[in-house]
Amino acid sequence: MEQPLYQRLAEHYRQAIYSGVLAPATRMPSVRTLVRLHQVSISTALQACRSLEDDGLIEARPRSGYFVLKNQRSKLLPVGEPDTRQVLDAASYVGIHDRVSDFIAKSAMHPPRIDLANSVAPPDAYPVDALKQAMLRAVRRYPESLTRAAPHQGHPYLRATLARRALDAGISASPDDILITHGCIEALNIALRAVAGPGDTIAVESPAYFGLLQVIGSLGMRALEIPTSPQRGLSIEALDLAFQTHADIKAVVVVPNLHNPLGSIMPDEDKARLVALCERQAIPLIEDDTYGALADGDEPLRAAKAWDRDGNVIYCASMQKTLAPGSRLGWMIGGRWKARLAMLKFVQSRPNAATPQIAIAEVLQSKGYDRHLMRLRRRLKTQREGMARAIAEHFPRGTRLSVPSGGMLLWVEMPDERASKDVFEHALDEGIRVAPGRMFSNSDRYEHFLRISCALPMSGDVQTAVRTLGRIVGGKH
Amino acid sequence: MEQPLYQRLAEHYRQAIYSGVLAPATRMPSVRTLVRLHQVSISTALQACRSLEDDGLIEARPRSGYFVLKNQRSKLLPVGEPDTRQVLDAASYVGIHDRVSDFIAKSAMHPPRIDLANSVAPPDAYPVDALKQAMLRAVRRYPESLTRAAPHQGHPYLRATLARRALDAGISASPDDILITHGCIEALNIALRAVAGPGDTIAVESPAYFGLLQVIGSLGMRALEIPTSPQRGLSIEALDLAFQTHADIKAVVVVPNLHNPLGSIMPDEDKARLVALCERQAIPLIEDDTYGALADGDEPLRAAKAWDRDGNVIYCASMQKTLAPGSRLGWMIGGRWKARLAMLKFVQSRPNAATPQIAIAEVLQSKGYDRHLMRLRRRLKTQREGMARAIAEHFPRGTRLSVPSGGMLLWVEMPDERASKDVFEHALDEGIRVAPGRMFSNSDRYEHFLRISCALPMSGDVQTAVRTLGRIVGGKH
Repeated sequence: MEQPLYQRLAEHYRQAIYSGVLAPATRMPSVRTLVRLHQVSISTALQACRSLEDDGLIEARPRSGYFVLKNQRSKLLPVGEPDTRQVLDAASYVGIHDRVSDFIAKSAMHPPRIDLANSVAPPDAYPVDALKQAMLRAVRRYPESLTRAAPHQGHPYLRATLARRALDAGISASPDDILITHGCIEALNIALRAVAGPGDTIAVESPAYFGLLQVIGSLGMRALEIPTSPQRGLSIEALDLAFQTHADIKAVVVVPNLHNPLGSIMPDEDKARLVALCERQAIPLIEDDTYGALADGDEPLRAAKAWDRDGNVIYCASMQKTLAPGSRLGWMIGGRWKARLAMLKFVQSRPNAATPQIAIAEVLQSKGYDRHLMRLRRRLKTQREGMARAIAEHFPRGTRLSVPSGGMLLWVEMPDERASKDVFEHALDEGIRVAPGRMFSNSDRYEHFLRISCALPMSGDVQTAVRTLGRIVGGKH
Repeated sequence: MEQPLYQRLAEHYRQAIYSGVLAPATRMPSVRTLVRLHQVSISTALQACRSLEDDGLIEARPRSGYFVLKNQRSKLLPVGEPDTRQVLDAASYVGIHDRVSDFIAKSAMHPPRIDLANSVAPPDAYPVDALKQAMLRAVRRYPESLTRAAPHQGHPYLRATLARRALDAGISASPDDILITHGCIEALNIALRAVAGPGDTIAVESPAYFGLLQVIGSLGMRALEIPTSPQRGLSIEALDLAFQTHADIKAVVVVPNLHNPLGSIMPDEDKARLVALCERQAIPLIEDDTYGALADGDEPLRAAKAWDRDGNVIYCASMQKTLAPGSRLGWMIGGRWKARLAMLKFVQSRPNAATPQIAIAEVLQSKGYDRHLMRLRRRLKTQREGMARAIAEHFPRGTRLSVPSGGMLLWVEMPDERASKDVFEHALDEGIRVAPGRMFSNSDRYEHFLRISCALPMSGDVQTAVRTLGRIVGGKH
């Protein structure tokens, strides 16, 4: 089907802006010029300009016409919105382990020079000295923590600290409500084991973090992928529809804040609706808030758990991306499943070792932690924008990308149904690693997507890697 | 059924020895005296003496008759041997979680003054200073371990160290074969998940460590309890019988070295037979070697894994009881399930943090570690014998106990079918904690057993606690 005329016109100028022919802050040709140059009606020319304005590429200035924006919201078309009327059939094991194992094995065989698959920033993005000093102090002050059984449910000092920190996300919890785990991944394992069993269906976002799909698959459960907007996150309407059509949904797992891989942030009103819907249906809601603290802006994002009235939300989080990627520490607030979660944690791995908990608690208590978070957020924003510009510059026409308002992950839709597996493999041959879209679903619907990390600074090497990647995506290799 | 005469006669003198009426090194009444005093035949008197000799209570000296031994092997009758023809029906969840939760909750409500339920020695039994220095060095030298993703399957340094240490138990493994876990309990979880699924039957020793029964129950599997000798461990005959009568056994879990709670050590020929039997039946054998390094004597015990020819044995162990109870570090050698185990570990909790692994590896490499183990073994032997003597002195007549050749656990059979739950609760009221027998089976068959720890030195307080405990067991409270 032919594109409407105004869209073709907008696309023409979009490319001019992306390519730099129309540099930021320069004036767009006037509407009259457009009419003359392209032989279109005034209304078509105006529509094209408004479309570019909607995309955040140009802005109207009173009496001066349209100007190319300096800070373009995105140089690329945003990733399309999903059809919320479509809910996939629940899939259990559809090779997600094979896909992830393939990714891990190939990466191990060809260690990349430039890793754009990382979902953690490099070590220098984290307060290594503060962590080191806190660890040294914890070891010196409490050496017997090394030779004494660890405290049940986690160290009281860390639990108290996290209860205070949870207030930032709008959650009221007592230290007693908090259970320390081995990263958010153990929290998710335990949460799912507490509320569902083999054969049960779990509603998840689509796309979904491959780690979550693996947990669901390994527990013999089935993931039901719910349409999810790259902007607003999980579609509440689609979830409601799924509840009506699938009687066997035993839990919903969501990442409302800075979803991996989408980067979407669920609006607060949707969080409230989601919590209310799950309560009404008496279906437990499991929330993964791994990335929330990495959102732009000084106002922290609220967790869906903030709207939880009757303990129906199990909140899971970690310090893995925000503070200490080597610590492997996570935590959860279990709501009404608190006792069962504590039992499962005990049975699965016993309490976490105490020493690192004491050290992490000390760092979390410090003012330096807030300063670190601010620095990390600013750094990621710069890198995210740099990476988006580089992709706009080097990726072929038709590439789509929604740049999220935080975090370090970009979800890139490639044109022409390029296979993410091929791109991954060819890139690895060139020493570059990206996460292929196929890892984020049990279906094949994200085969033409890549998750590209902007955890690295946009050095010359990274720029070159993106250029190479663009060449591979363009089929020139 | 009436006891044979010689047994009644032996019992009479056994009590005399236990009670101190016949003190160590004193002369037993001569055979002629016995004949006269008790109006029995010479052969009955001789049989009674030989029975006492077999129990390690008296020794024959040429031309001088029998003398009470100074170092009695045990002052108590050994715990009875099980009927190996009897295999229980597989039980899944029979309240083991409730039993353990009850134990934990009550302990938390009444923190004991004297904890005889501990299966780890007190902090001063472990090389706290070496561990502390190694941790400080690891943090100072490799601070970026705190801010960098942890190495897959565990730190190479620790894996190489453990591969060398495994040679002591007769196991040849490369560092690549070793997977680091959160304690032995996570290793057991992963091992069971790798080879069996919900509804499957798992053959275990009877009694069995409650942690194992919880893992089996929480995974929806069913534990089939196999008769186990307090001396020789799992009955291979009974296991063979179980294989013939139960078609749905998907794995066998054993603790061949210093079983918890029995303290039994499986003879090497039984280990070989066990491995061969499981191989022949193509049923995976999961071995828990948590306590092996704590056996008396300088010759280390061999693991069943030492006889594994085709990778059918999954070996699980930890540093929890031997070196660093606060570290929560365990490890496993997966045999032919290696890849699947690595995947499950990744999905369940990702790799362990690196820093503690580096520190523990350094300590394991040192000569100080062997010296520590020797000291710990000697200490536990002294405490074990002291505790056995105290129990013999203070517990009521009819109490039975097999003193194991290593470790820190005594499995005590109470007379008169005393309920272990009552004893546990009454003891806790007096500030003393023991582990009730009911936690070690899905059945009620160990209701009249206690697991008593000899992890503590036999101080005056501990002596008093054992006297109090004896009073409670005797029904006087």
